[in-house]
Amino acid sequence: MLPLHLQPESHIPLYVQLRDQLRALVHSGELRTGDRIPASRELAGQLGVHRTTVANAYAELESEGLIRGHVGRGTFICGAPVKQFSPPPRSNGNGGAMPWEALFADERGEEGLSRLMPDVPPGAIAFTAARPPDEFFPVEEFRRCANDVLRREGRRILQLGSTDGYEPLKRGLLELLRGEGLNVRAEQLLITDGCQQAIDLVCKAFLRPGDSVALENPAYPGAIAIFASARVRTLAVGVETDPARTGHVGLNVDALETVLLQNRVKLLFITPDFHNPTGTVLPVAERRRVLEIAAHYQVPVIEDGIYARVRLRGNALPSLKRLDNSGNVIHIDSISKIAFPGLRVGWCIGAESAIERLRLVKQSTDLHTDQLSQATMAEFIRRGYLARHIGKMKKVYRSRLEAMEEALEKHMPDSTTWTHPEGGMSLWVTLPPGFDAGELLIHARERGILFVPGRHFYSQHPQPNTLRLGFAGVDEKSIARGIETLCDLLKAELRKRQRGVRDEFHARVALI
Amino acid sequence: MLPLHLQPESHIPLYVQLRDQLRALVHSGELRTGDRIPASRELAGQLGVHRTTVANAYAELESEGLIRGHVGRGTFICGAPVKQFSPPPRSNGNGGAMPWEALFADERGEEGLSRLMPDVPPGAIAFTAARPPDEFFPVEEFRRCANDVLRREGRRILQLGSTDGYEPLKRGLLELLRGEGLNVRAEQLLITDGCQQAIDLVCKAFLRPGDSVALENPAYPGAIAIFASARVRTLAVGVETDPARTGHVGLNVDALETVLLQNRVKLLFITPDFHNPTGTVLPVAERRRVLEIAAHYQVPVIEDGIYARVRLRGNALPSLKRLDNSGNVIHIDSISKIAFPGLRVGWCIGAESAIERLRLVKQSTDLHTDQLSQATMAEFIRRGYLARHIGKMKKVYRSRLEAMEEALEKHMPDSTTWTHPEGGMSLWVTLPPGFDAGELLIHARERGILFVPGRHFYSQHPQPNTLRLGFAGVDEKSIARGIETLCDLLKAELRKRQRGVRDEFHARVALI
Repeated sequence: MLPLHLQPESHIPLYVQLRDQLRALVHSGELRTGDRIPASRELAGQLGVHRTTVANAYAELESEGLIRGHVGRGTFICGAPVKQFSPPPRSNGNGGAMPWEALFADERGEEGLSRLMPDVPPGAIAFTAARPPDEFFPVEEFRRCANDVLRREGRRILQLGSTDGYEPLKRGLLELLRGEGLNVRAEQLLITDGCQQAIDLVCKAFLRPGDSVALENPAYPGAIAIFASARVRTLAVGVETDPARTGHVGLNVDALETVLLQNRVKLLFITPDFHNPTGTVLPVAERRRVLEIAAHYQVPVIEDGIYARVRLRGNALPSLKRLDNSGNVIHIDSISKIAFPGLRVGWCIGAESAIERLRLVKQSTDLHTDQLSQATMAEFIRRGYLARHIGKMKKVYRSRLEAMEEALEKHMPDSTTWTHPEGGMSLWVTLPPGFDAGELLIHARERGILFVPGRHFYSQHPQPNTLRLGFAGVDEKSIARGIETLCDLLKAELRKRQRGVRDEFHARVALI
Repeated sequence: MLPLHLQPESHIPLYVQLRDQLRALVHSGELRTGDRIPASRELAGQLGVHRTTVANAYAELESEGLIRGHVGRGTFICGAPVKQFSPPPRSNGNGGAMPWEALFADERGEEGLSRLMPDVPPGAIAFTAARPPDEFFPVEEFRRCANDVLRREGRRILQLGSTDGYEPLKRGLLELLRGEGLNVRAEQLLITDGCQQAIDLVCKAFLRPGDSVALENPAYPGAIAIFASARVRTLAVGVETDPARTGHVGLNVDALETVLLQNRVKLLFITPDFHNPTGTVLPVAERRRVLEIAAHYQVPVIEDGIYARVRLRGNALPSLKRLDNSGNVIHIDSISKIAFPGLRVGWCIGAESAIERLRLVKQSTDLHTDQLSQATMAEFIRRGYLARHIGKMKKVYRSRLEAMEEALEKHMPDSTTWTHPEGGMSLWVTLPPGFDAGELLIHARERGILFVPGRHFYSQHPQPNTLRLGFAGVDEKSIARGIETLCDLLKAELRKRQRGVRDEFHARVALI
């Protein structure tokens, strides 16, 4: 039991009292890095307060970096200061083992992105993934391509290559893009090890520690991680999931304008198509506004197009890159959502001078992207296998999305909302205020259901009552069963909560 | 003709006068970025001074970053200040095209590592490369491996993988290392996209802008480039190529100790086996001293082992990692010199906590290394193809090294020295003082001979009279012919120079 003493009669809100007392316990050393703290419901029970009180306190401590919830494992203290490194005096013998932890360039003690990809126990239904399911991979076609390019151009593939990218792949991509209405010269295209590397290269090329980036909130955690490790400040711009609020879903462009007006922003990072995690699409009018505002403030726009080809219904919208007349947009893309995540092959497109700089940065980062995968993908595209595979997968995903929506419609309690994506691989659920998706996950995991709590996607102001449900990797039957189980848990929680509110009301009345 | 006016009677050395006047011409705008300046011999002729005078002035301006020599193309101005970015006022319309150059995070205007890998004209003899020649690649064996792993485990290869590395490759490498006397656990091994990425990850994990790294001088330019772009200070520690000076070749360990004593050094980067570019090997006693000194000052050691398996004669020495009892060494390695540079597959080995941090950094850098190449290389190693290929290539390289040494012995003028590497892919030539290898290259190129001037390998105090000759990529006959031509050019230069000294002496006498 933690030594916590809340005063219900104080004018200080209970959650603030709790937050401050927990923080003091960390600073005094009574709670230490790695200590597990009780689940919010458990602590609420011990303290006789509502669970929302505890969840709010935890959310604030988490955004301060003092605690961190791990999917399905509970919440842990993570904020101990790092030891200061000071070299020993000159005359001190051999020195012994290296104090590695004291030498790290930053103080994050986190688990990295792995928490978004937890191990899936056998038999579990995992809504965690937003990646293509491997049972549909056209392995045989791919193998034939690898075989043929190695026979035909093996020596060239295996020899040191060009930082730009493997020429046949570049040619294939330029043609693919031309077919989609985007005319790009070879000098405007750089092959990367996937989108993750493209973001890392952009970060190295354009940002210094202390610079600011405007970023959707929530956003792709891989982008948040790169900016954090480069000590770049992220300025969170809200993503609307409820069209009633701003008239559209997607990035809140008014909020963006305010951020750019009030800050010296060096880059804007945005995913207009099937934004991960919310699945929203930014309307064309808003895309034009984003470009106008970014041009006005001379802020380059990094457009993440990784999900754009996974449109499952409705009409495709022009990318920012297509709408961009001034060369202000760097568009990043990859094969990992439309084909094979295990090959690290992506690309970026932009103004020639920007791409040339990214090429130089890539050169000193890893010389060039692996050529075996580049050559094989070039062949895979050339033979039309990629187009055919995308067509096949869209049918699979559409059916799975519909199954998920049907199940949600049928079983979700009224007070819960979710997005209705026209593509991508996941949708976004908002539970009633005060609910904690991390807590829900603990129970769901016991029933063999996994998902990713929404808070992992926020760079600021995490909303504990949100969660991401990936539909692409789960078959229709499992979706129906998994969503029903999840909704049952949620409804049970809702009932308990209603009882709890009554109890708390009674408790408060008794205090008067 | 440049407006230069040297005063031979001044007490200020001629080269200092020349340096300062050239610098002033850049600052006044009379010389601008991209302008080509005369070759040192040409300018020396115009000014009536010795070529060494011009070469010395150029060397200093180059180390200031104001001029840069490009292999075979001449010397150019590269020091114009970058425009300052200032956002436009609020009410200013669309903004127009992005001023990309003003947005780059650093101000280097260089060509990157490409200058070390110039295009080779048809028929030319290129001593530029220090990489395996592709005509010996066992493409057919490799193709069969790719084929079989895709048949056997295609879905797993093409699906998103683990940041650690593909498990069968990790297993194969651990076994390989065990066979070499190094017992390492899986947690101490991280797969990377080659050595270049390993250095980049180390840099991100352990260094902040302004930190200092001790680095061999000369050194691998890829390492210099990474540290420069991370705004890390490199402290140059000399590499001895003449055993008469310090009793051994390789890193000057006394100089290292002085650097560590006088500076707060965060990392030591060292290539003890077949150091690139000099080809030197650090003796065991000096390896032990390096470890002792590094442990004493608690400075982690990054050991680049990329050439170590390419030992062509003499006995193998234990790596720093094998001698390391305290876990202070991170050993980086790759398949690019022993097998295929076009596949970006390497690894690093170190203390568990250091590797765990590098894994986190890699995760946000590119998620994981391409799995097709990892899986194929695992199979290539498992079947014994790698060991067989290394054995075959060592014979090829040994014969080429001997051919080069024979030709040098036969044709080089007495005043020139070169290293006698026991392995690796290149040797290091020191021309008589005052000679400029960049100038020699201009003439050599006209005769169809290419090499890399030594100054590209220096982070500080470039020695213009050095050059690297790669022997691995050129057959014996071409080596004999190329070296003879190069020596002829050099001898012709020497004769001219002797005449020049007489002329200058006469000129100076005439002034008195």
